[in-house]
Amino acid sequence: MQALKERILKDGKNLGGGILKVDSFINHQVDPELMDACGAEFARRFVKLGATRILTAEISGIAPALMAARHLRLPVVYARKTKPITMPDAVYLTVAPSHTKGRAVELIVSPEYLAQGERVLIIDDFLASGATILGLVRLTQAAGAQVVGIGALIEKSFEGGRQALAQLKVPIESLVCITNMDNGKLVFSEVS
Amino acid sequence: MQALKERILKDGKNLGGGILKVDSFINHQVDPELMDACGAEFARRFVKLGATRILTAEISGIAPALMAARHLRLPVVYARKTKPITMPDAVYLTVAPSHTKGRAVELIVSPEYLAQGERVLIIDDFLASGATILGLVRLTQAAGAQVVGIGALIEKSFEGGRQALAQLKVPIESLVCITNMDNGKLVFSEVS
Repeated sequence: MQALKERILKDGKNLGGGILKVDSFINHQVDPELMDACGAEFARRFVKLGATRILTAEISGIAPALMAARHLRLPVVYARKTKPITMPDAVYLTVAPSHTKGRAVELIVSPEYLAQGERVLIIDDFLASGATILGLVRLTQAAGAQVVGIGALIEKSFEGGRQALAQLKVPIESLVCITNMDNGKLVFSEVS
Repeated sequence: MQALKERILKDGKNLGGGILKVDSFINHQVDPELMDACGAEFARRFVKLGATRILTAEISGIAPALMAARHLRLPVVYARKTKPITMPDAVYLTVAPSHTKGRAVELIVSPEYLAQGERVLIIDDFLASGATILGLVRLTQAAGAQVVGIGALIEKSFEGGRQALAQLKVPIESLVCITNMDNGKLVFSEVS
């Protein structure tokens, strides 16, 4: 997606160690028009899947997932990392290692909003190692629901997430794909 | 706002102790069309303020603030509760007591996205005691920026937040206002 690629080239920062800083338009400050355009692009790519629900992880998955949900007219559920007092005692919970946090985080979904038979589209900001998305897959499967597609704003293909998710045999779409971040570089794949 | 009030009456749950559960459309599962309508209503009420930026707090402020930002065509910044590795060492940080979490939480904003001279519109999901919003006000003032308005989806007027914020002398708008939650009741004010 050209607009997202151009924005990353303009405002993204390669901090080294595979860390791409996109705090000025995705992760701390959010550009709502860009996010809305990304949501529309996810909708265009996934509209035929017949998804019944979008699932993401707080915090930075919320903006792209919400905008995709708006265009697909679907409810969106964000997995919580801490259990709020409004959540029932019995929940779906899994643990996923977080590369950027340097520790494992819990992902929690209430059974109220993820039920057997649902067709779940997973949307997140990054597809890197795939660890967070695999956590969301486990929550979906625990609920007896089916993952029908996976979308990410930015794929870092050199971290292997796409391979880790290939076993699911569902469409995996990233709006831009970065193949190399070594030595301050930012190399994009042309296919995305 | 009638659509939000009707949704609270249909799907909200008074859990006692002043806790209103809105997990099925705002706080865990999100209804994107309702949030978008709320964003449009915020835009209608605040368009004349000349705001240059919207500020909210992660996590549940993100959806309403993002939709308001979309309609006002403004960038939105969400204060982080933990400092990500992509953030510079010197940040604006304040501590706000959280009623629903039963402890204090940190609110952190990078100086990169909140600068002197900005006109800041604060949007959050709830206006209860006002503690979180006052934290966002302190961050704004620390940056040398000016709060020009405050909006919340749901005000619980019996917790006194509006009085706590009155000293700011800025417009405070809630889309629905609940005046009483005693004994399982849910009493709405007719003014909002």
